[in-house]
Amino acid sequence: MNSAGELRADFDALSAIGRQAQGGWSRPAFGPVDCAANAWFMQRAREAGLSVRADTVGNVIARLEGRPGQPAIAVGSHLDTVMAGGAFDGAIGVLAGLEAVRNIHRSEKDWPVPLEVIAFRDEEGRFGAFTGSRAMMGLVSRDEVERRRAVDGTTLSDALRQAGLDPQAVPQARRDAREFAAFLELHIEQGSVLEQAGVAIGIVTAIAGQERMAIKFQGAPDHAGTTPMDMRRDAFAAAARFADRFRDMVISEGEGSARGTVGIVKVSPNQGNVVPSEVRLGLEIRDVSAQRLKRLQGAAAGLARAAAEAMKVDVSIRTVYQAEPVEMAQTVRDALSGAARALGVEAMALASGANHDAGVLGTLVPAGMVFVPSRGGRSHCPEEHTEWPHVEAGARVLERAVRDLAARMIESGESGK
Amino acid sequence: MNSAGELRADFDALSAIGRQAQGGWSRPAFGPVDCAANAWFMQRAREAGLSVRADTVGNVIARLEGRPGQPAIAVGSHLDTVMAGGAFDGAIGVLAGLEAVRNIHRSEKDWPVPLEVIAFRDEEGRFGAFTGSRAMMGLVSRDEVERRRAVDGTTLSDALRQAGLDPQAVPQARRDAREFAAFLELHIEQGSVLEQAGVAIGIVTAIAGQERMAIKFQGAPDHAGTTPMDMRRDAFAAAARFADRFRDMVISEGEGSARGTVGIVKVSPNQGNVVPSEVRLGLEIRDVSAQRLKRLQGAAAGLARAAAEAMKVDVSIRTVYQAEPVEMAQTVRDALSGAARALGVEAMALASGANHDAGVLGTLVPAGMVFVPSRGGRSHCPEEHTEWPHVEAGARVLERAVRDLAARMIESGESGK
Repeated sequence: MNSAGELRADFDALSAIGRQAQGGWSRPAFGPVDCAANAWFMQRAREAGLSVRADTVGNVIARLEGRPGQPAIAVGSHLDTVMAGGAFDGAIGVLAGLEAVRNIHRSEKDWPVPLEVIAFRDEEGRFGAFTGSRAMMGLVSRDEVERRRAVDGTTLSDALRQAGLDPQAVPQARRDAREFAAFLELHIEQGSVLEQAGVAIGIVTAIAGQERMAIKFQGAPDHAGTTPMDMRRDAFAAAARFADRFRDMVISEGEGSARGTVGIVKVSPNQGNVVPSEVRLGLEIRDVSAQRLKRLQGAAAGLARAAAEAMKVDVSIRTVYQAEPVEMAQTVRDALSGAARALGVEAMALASGANHDAGVLGTLVPAGMVFVPSRGGRSHCPEEHTEWPHVEAGARVLERAVRDLAARMIESGESGK
Repeated sequence: MNSAGELRADFDALSAIGRQAQGGWSRPAFGPVDCAANAWFMQRAREAGLSVRADTVGNVIARLEGRPGQPAIAVGSHLDTVMAGGAFDGAIGVLAGLEAVRNIHRSEKDWPVPLEVIAFRDEEGRFGAFTGSRAMMGLVSRDEVERRRAVDGTTLSDALRQAGLDPQAVPQARRDAREFAAFLELHIEQGSVLEQAGVAIGIVTAIAGQERMAIKFQGAPDHAGTTPMDMRRDAFAAAARFADRFRDMVISEGEGSARGTVGIVKVSPNQGNVVPSEVRLGLEIRDVSAQRLKRLQGAAAGLARAAAEAMKVDVSIRTVYQAEPVEMAQTVRDALSGAARALGVEAMALASGANHDAGVLGTLVPAGMVFVPSRGGRSHCPEEHTEWPHVEAGARVLERAVRDLAARMIESGESGK
């Protein structure tokens, strides 16, 4: 068995799909390149002897049967990418999952627990994020399918049809959470905590919750040359004061855990000689503590109102997205850290600032994640990179954890008889 | 003589040119509508008995001859507008100038001093600001003509050709400053100082100088969810801190005179889940004191460097435009305030934060300006408005000042004989 070679060959083959001449990988969800990647994966899973199907939202489910009546241990991630993204994000989670199940299928006779490798669709949010895993958890309604559209204007319905899927049937992708004993996902960290610590494996404790806010400051478009400073209603002066104090507040009250980012700034009329009359900010706060997240959100709103008052501008504050933090299941975390220990691989616990398919499944299914280091913390760009030995180490920990979880299920099932 | 009625009729006729169905006036420089406005003005000036010509950059010069060898007193402004601008900016200066010269021509026999009404082209800067008045002062080279283009991509050369002008000939618009005894311009204030003071007439003391700076903060596009606050190089955090402190600095060190505005903000990649990696700010500082302007510019650069250092980002600072403050000529200021006093119209002295054709001519020619109030301080928008009695008062002050300046020239000429 030359498992390491096979995982690398799979990675190289998948990396050929959607590679851009100008650098990076582009496999936008439900587009032809994403469909090609999923078709390639179905073929590889069939070659591994698994039974393969796609559900009504296009998630690929490759299954190794076990004893009847047993819930499945699922592994996987996603094959779509952002535009000009990297080769590792999502891809290595699907491929390491396939590697684990392939190895188990080859080496074990009469394997007792059903295993699934799942490639979820649209994790990156071309149509709003986690369309595939959310549909599987029953969280995508027909209404939502109708409503969603990509930044380029493509509707989700059209994209689904072009991918050979029926938009009306999406809600039928829903599965009962009881079909799953656990879900495990290997993923790149997308931050630099592991790299800075010099540790190859991260065991995720929790996935941070999010508050995304839209703040609009509304002032007046006065002439920049003629309007005295004290007669202005400068919307950008308010936005700048808010953003500076928001960052200070996240640092001083975030207890080293919270992250706060003003990522979107739109200024009108955005002319050199006109006082900005309108500024729209898009910001997010993330934290693994639901309580702290709520507190920081309230503090941010207070800072926005104070900045608006100081600059004599109007302000409106909206919450545009909320996600509760998701704790990873202790059973899965224990299996992952036990596996790392058994394999002699150094591992550390860390929180995930980004959400993942495991965060969606984790609301209903015991879930866990293995992180491998991202060089320079970079992701969603052509430079995204993980040293290959780290990918291999992650894959071995994943496989070992699946084997151990299955063994414990069988033990507890037999002891329960 | 029904002068008031004629000025109003001229204003109404001009206001019909370039009025937009959706609101506002659009007479972009050298375009067909701007050409129509200038052609209409040439016709009106001919009807008033003036000799009319256009120079090689398309400035319209309507002249009433005086005694040979006398330099001219010129009045005027511009007929172009920003897109969807107002009806008053520039237009009332040209029309009040025509009104003054028309009245003098009608009422005086053997008028001694040559008078000119000038409509300058491209004051609003479709091709870089003050193209007409700068060409007349010899400040526009063939190179500059080649280089300039509008935001929509139109080159100045093409625009000139379409207006029937030869781009190569633009530098020939230059006139010797000694041809002018004085230049007087009536203009809307574009601020709310007069309105707040309840005074109809402003006598401009000086036109503020400007420093326009382009500041670029360069950080790293880290994942907003995964990158701890202390590992970030957030370009917008630096920009926000800079902008907040820049405003405080302009207020505390500007001695009530300086104005500082961050009007342009461009954030990359401008996505909610990515730490901003690059922010470009366009800002300007204006002051009537050259010394204070220089000091504030230095302080702004220092604040930008400090903000960059605090946020661990790189910064580059460029000066993109500089204009020295221009003092209005004491002789012209005295003539204007004397005229207001003689007419029993309340007037106040004030600085101009905006630059004008009078600021361009004022670098070489004794120049002065009369301001009339802008409702709500608004300009460059459809809502731009000046109460008609204020326009009339300004026109009367302008005419009276021209008469008084001419009388003084003749007196001093005769006493000098």
